[in-house]
Amino acid sequence: MALAADPSVISFAGGMPNPELLPTDLIARIVADMDRSTLQNALQYGPTPGYPPLIEALSHYLTEKGISLKNRSIIITQGGQQALDILARVFIDPDAPLLTETPAFIGALATFKAHGAALTGIPMDEEGMKEDLLAQNLSLLEPSLVYCNPCFQNPSGVLYSLRRKKRIASLITRYDCCLIEDDPYNELWFAEEDHPHTASMLQQVDGDAAICHVGSFSKIIGPGLRLGWLVGPERIIEKCSLAKQSMDACSSSLTQVCAHHFLEKGLLQEHVTSLRSAYAARARTMQGALCASMPEEVTWTRPRGGFYIWLTMPPRMDASKVFAYAVEKKCAFVIGSAFDPHGQNNHCIRLSFSHTPPEKIEKGVYILADAIRSFL
Amino acid sequence: MALAADPSVISFAGGMPNPELLPTDLIARIVADMDRSTLQNALQYGPTPGYPPLIEALSHYLTEKGISLKNRSIIITQGGQQALDILARVFIDPDAPLLTETPAFIGALATFKAHGAALTGIPMDEEGMKEDLLAQNLSLLEPSLVYCNPCFQNPSGVLYSLRRKKRIASLITRYDCCLIEDDPYNELWFAEEDHPHTASMLQQVDGDAAICHVGSFSKIIGPGLRLGWLVGPERIIEKCSLAKQSMDACSSSLTQVCAHHFLEKGLLQEHVTSLRSAYAARARTMQGALCASMPEEVTWTRPRGGFYIWLTMPPRMDASKVFAYAVEKKCAFVIGSAFDPHGQNNHCIRLSFSHTPPEKIEKGVYILADAIRSFL
Repeated sequence: MALAADPSVISFAGGMPNPELLPTDLIARIVADMDRSTLQNALQYGPTPGYPPLIEALSHYLTEKGISLKNRSIIITQGGQQALDILARVFIDPDAPLLTETPAFIGALATFKAHGAALTGIPMDEEGMKEDLLAQNLSLLEPSLVYCNPCFQNPSGVLYSLRRKKRIASLITRYDCCLIEDDPYNELWFAEEDHPHTASMLQQVDGDAAICHVGSFSKIIGPGLRLGWLVGPERIIEKCSLAKQSMDACSSSLTQVCAHHFLEKGLLQEHVTSLRSAYAARARTMQGALCASMPEEVTWTRPRGGFYIWLTMPPRMDASKVFAYAVEKKCAFVIGSAFDPHGQNNHCIRLSFSHTPPEKIEKGVYILADAIRSFL
Repeated sequence: MALAADPSVISFAGGMPNPELLPTDLIARIVADMDRSTLQNALQYGPTPGYPPLIEALSHYLTEKGISLKNRSIIITQGGQQALDILARVFIDPDAPLLTETPAFIGALATFKAHGAALTGIPMDEEGMKEDLLAQNLSLLEPSLVYCNPCFQNPSGVLYSLRRKKRIASLITRYDCCLIEDDPYNELWFAEEDHPHTASMLQQVDGDAAICHVGSFSKIIGPGLRLGWLVGPERIIEKCSLAKQSMDACSSSLTQVCAHHFLEKGLLQEHVTSLRSAYAARARTMQGALCASMPEEVTWTRPRGGFYIWLTMPPRMDASKVFAYAVEKKCAFVIGSAFDPHGQNNHCIRLSFSHTPPEKIEKGVYILADAIRSFL
């Protein structure tokens, strides 16, 4: 974050939108259009589960995506991160086994570790978390939680296949544990044909199955609203709502009212459409620059949406050294070990193309290629 | 909250400002005046400890109040409630002893219980938490945390004397534990002469002493911003900032930018001045109605600021029964046992005068007096 804020650094580090892609005019207009009574709601406490009109608009949005709300509830959270923290508080006893993807989202690892979970990483292939290893570890460790990020995974960019999602959902039901589907990027596909593959795990099971879906406005409106949501079986969401009550009473009413109007005025669809093409263009630029500059021993993923490319160097390489070299030349990224539950895999690198304008992406990739080459 | 939202109910229940007292026009103007770059900051992630210009403005505000920031840091939290939750996460191991006032703020009790603390309540007198009992329990239980709410205490309305604050601060230092000074009401005195008595515990000690001050914009701007702050020794705040990172990454940038402009444009002073006289008028109206209507066996506190009056009935009375009767007649409040660490003292009642307009306060108090009389 600190490096990303330095304008002289080309940052492939943070998973933050480019400022130019934030809907500043729309949000300013939404606030300007609020009447007195709406502004009073915006400055007042609200119910812990969320501002009722926002929950209603979100229910409509989820139903349109094909997610049934039968036997399910929704709570609004302080970004997706708080949804993870709430679930961790409800489910994790110290030393409780927990399965995550490896590599996995840093923020999730940090929360699970803070609650004392004993993490085991399940490696991925091009369809998602490997199902045989998942089944084996579910049986062996009897974890209470499994964590995955199935659409344009952070950090690998992998899009889970529908077949794999169905298989994972059925394993979860069979082993009676809870799955967290952390899904902030599912709207951000690059090609229309990938849209069906972004279907939620919730669409594969009925409302009682212990799958909790975490969504977020951070990547599709703006992280500064700090708004996410958690959808899952009523019995789980009720506990989560009680937990949130003692954590922060409720999320900001002002930002919830903004998000409600964003959905209700139908602004989301058009805005997300423009984001898709903007991020697709950035991804193409980065792919082109990688192809043109990287040594043969280096490979990387070709994401079909989201914010990230995952780059793999030969196992003898140390991403920390490459990082130190590249930062000197004003290019930043995140080293692979940060995404590993056990701090391993440091021959990998996560590149985020979301924050950097296309004209700087090439320059940054060339700096990185130069850095890697100097250690090969 | 649910009862407070029903317009047909006269609510003395929630600790929420009356909607008419929220600075809706000022906040709308602040957003309208934001330039594009400020709006971009408002919609983006920010540093975990808070939006730097807000921290700077808050530092200035605290320094003006006479609080030294030497060896101290600040983090912005999701309301005062999150500050308590963060401190609980950092300090409380399951079954760890913790001392609170009794009666004490419901939200604090809920958080401490959620973290598994073993609570012991220290009774209060008109100067604050009783110092002999505090000393005795510090020595006996060796708690890691002590919690107090020294200005116009929630729920009793008690204003700690300066002498008592000094004595508590010195006990805390001597017994090497940490004191949470939860202080959201300190600006809301009714008479200028009480202003000096609202001085923070931080003003009684140097920056290294383990006193953490929790402040909030909820009662002086609006709870919907969900913004509070935590000030304390650097070594503690650093741990708190790490904890917050995995809890929600950062607080809302949009609401932080609003609060920054509210402070920076000098709007707080005038707004708080108008709140003081509005709440003083409500308190006077409630006192008048209590004097005119209550049976002789009932006593109550005479707060010099804040939101609350604490009413004590004879010990044989059960506030739950009075509540059920009064709610039928459309008047709500909170029963005493909710504020007791052990669920006792149910012959007491908390009345909040912050939410109800003066013309309805009398009517509500008469309903309550009638309800009490029917059980005496």
